[in-house]
Amino acid sequence: MEFAKRLDNVTGSAIRAIFALLAQPGMISFAGGNPSPDSFPKEDIANISASLLCEHGSSILQYGGTPGIGSLKNTVIKMMETRSISAKPDEVIITSGATQGIGLAAKTLVNPGDVILTESPTFIGALQTFLTYEADVKGVEMDDDGMKMDDLEKKLTLYRPKFIYTIPTFQNPTGRTMSLERRKQMIALCKAHNVLILEDDPYCDLRYSGQPVRPIKSLDEDQLVIYLMSFSKIISPGLRVGAAIAHPRVIEKYNIAKQGEDLHTANLSQEIVNAYMLSGKAEPHIEAICAQYRDKRDAMLKKMEEWPKSITYTKPDGGLFIWVDLPKHMNAVDLFKQCVDAGVAYVPGVHFFPEGGHENTMRLNFSMASFEQIDKGMDILKGVIEKNI
Amino acid sequence: MEFAKRLDNVTGSAIRAIFALLAQPGMISFAGGNPSPDSFPKEDIANISASLLCEHGSSILQYGGTPGIGSLKNTVIKMMETRSISAKPDEVIITSGATQGIGLAAKTLVNPGDVILTESPTFIGALQTFLTYEADVKGVEMDDDGMKMDDLEKKLTLYRPKFIYTIPTFQNPTGRTMSLERRKQMIALCKAHNVLILEDDPYCDLRYSGQPVRPIKSLDEDQLVIYLMSFSKIISPGLRVGAAIAHPRVIEKYNIAKQGEDLHTANLSQEIVNAYMLSGKAEPHIEAICAQYRDKRDAMLKKMEEWPKSITYTKPDGGLFIWVDLPKHMNAVDLFKQCVDAGVAYVPGVHFFPEGGHENTMRLNFSMASFEQIDKGMDILKGVIEKNI
Repeated sequence: MEFAKRLDNVTGSAIRAIFALLAQPGMISFAGGNPSPDSFPKEDIANISASLLCEHGSSILQYGGTPGIGSLKNTVIKMMETRSISAKPDEVIITSGATQGIGLAAKTLVNPGDVILTESPTFIGALQTFLTYEADVKGVEMDDDGMKMDDLEKKLTLYRPKFIYTIPTFQNPTGRTMSLERRKQMIALCKAHNVLILEDDPYCDLRYSGQPVRPIKSLDEDQLVIYLMSFSKIISPGLRVGAAIAHPRVIEKYNIAKQGEDLHTANLSQEIVNAYMLSGKAEPHIEAICAQYRDKRDAMLKKMEEWPKSITYTKPDGGLFIWVDLPKHMNAVDLFKQCVDAGVAYVPGVHFFPEGGHENTMRLNFSMASFEQIDKGMDILKGVIEKNI
Repeated sequence: MEFAKRLDNVTGSAIRAIFALLAQPGMISFAGGNPSPDSFPKEDIANISASLLCEHGSSILQYGGTPGIGSLKNTVIKMMETRSISAKPDEVIITSGATQGIGLAAKTLVNPGDVILTESPTFIGALQTFLTYEADVKGVEMDDDGMKMDDLEKKLTLYRPKFIYTIPTFQNPTGRTMSLERRKQMIALCKAHNVLILEDDPYCDLRYSGQPVRPIKSLDEDQLVIYLMSFSKIISPGLRVGAAIAHPRVIEKYNIAKQGEDLHTANLSQEIVNAYMLSGKAEPHIEAICAQYRDKRDAMLKKMEEWPKSITYTKPDGGLFIWVDLPKHMNAVDLFKQCVDAGVAYVPGVHFFPEGGHENTMRLNFSMASFEQIDKGMDILKGVIEKNI
């Protein structure tokens, strides 16, 4: 059997091996990026689902249009207004999670060998997806204010990339937020170099401290930004609903490319998300999630205050992740095995870097574990780190 | 904006223009391939959905695994046994409709320029999807017993294709079923030429007359066949659930490629389909659909008995479509405009041919329209044809 060249460099085996370990009984996981399992409004969704199917079952169960259900597109447009983004219906397509919006960007824009710039480190799923379209992914250095603009400018000139992939707010894996100043600079640079931006913004509603920063898309007068939003972190990832907002020509290409993937996002998922957003229950639900995750973040950060001072880490204002820099001589891949044996898991940072390296880094997730697990897991982690420092 | 080369040849605009016309009030459509809107078990699904969410909401609303929910995979494996296909769990992946299974075949197997052989005519959606992966699609001649084996053998030698795409049972668009003899010949030919088969089988449960013919996959001792099944025609297309059954190495590649499309098929859709199949309600439901579609097929064929004798058409034992050959001098694209003006629509056959041509053909769908619409629409169609013959 001879497979297509495009899959040659994608195995995902290291990450799958990590997640296979999480199934061990008693394992405390700081590895995933999942919402807390008790955060889902399951009774509300059960009621919404039953009444939608009874009232509109004939259309929900029938084929739908590829761009998505009109009422949900309108709901997305209204949500965008609260983010200072104005969008028309032909600038919106419903996707099966922001994941699909990432894949469609590569599918519609990237020819083999084209360069994509990303934050270094960046989201593993995006890295893998870009590789399946034979993109050449190059990382841009970042600091606590996000992507560094001098390095970005250098690499825009050097590589002439097809687009920049960025998660500017509560970034995965670092938890960092790009400053407003940098966002303005990025738009100006991309305009000068005629380069598109893929702005992935699934975490923006999960803010626990500090002031909101406008999405890059809201500064985008020239429609250079493809903006991805998601309902995964605020309602449910299992329903697989998100949206892409971009220039109508981009949306038209997304539409054609999506037809060959899933024809359309499941109607029931779309209708549930729409009805839930319109029910008045979403705002208090998101507030409740934020309150819970804020406390979990604080619980994890509090335990980290006891760590040796040679270890640095981010203190995110939102999202799901804390990023850890161990002293250079330490190796988070080696440490990982000891931690798993002791009953706690994380993701070694090396997997998030387009060009590898940075073996001394790790990503910690604070949303999935219980408070008790956070306390216990962080004690185990501290013990392993102190033994190896 | 410079888009990827892979989308250059795909516009789908002709088909979209046709479907846009269907929105006109009063239009009788024989154009779609949709199940009848009153065929959906919406109350049963409403009840199943609500109780699933109440009982298992925390896992249904959480992220799921890319290969699909284990219990649904087991249900698919049991369904396959009734089709004389034996499959192990690592030979099955749940897809977002058979549509995704078609796209993943191209994504995992096709390098730009690779040849795919299909029946001529074949399913438009597959044609368009293959083009987005820059495949070179070549048609194989068919007759009432399906793909012609002498033409297949010739083209296997001539083109050395990556795989053969076939809908052997109640084919879209012709309604034809490939004979058992031909299925055995196809397997033998593919073994000799070391070529894979993508067997798309969404209609097999919609049989109204004649005896079932074994899927090609059931004759497949060498795992050359990627078999696609779908719940779209027997439960609901709007839920977007199907499955692919193939060699574990193919399934592993599907798994990697699917991660970048939608991560996983919506859990709620998967759980609903699984619970409905296990509820004991599926068998009588499918029987009821078949009874209704049989009557609609018969109603349409009865009206066609009054047509001029120079027109030939298929008399399918199942599925959703009748295929019409008008006299060579007639053009179903020109006729289409007159028909739409008179209030009835179909799909001109030219769109289904990989190499175009065959302007004298058309596809009629009999599942979507009511009996009254079938009578009225067929009268209109007869009038337009007689005026132009």
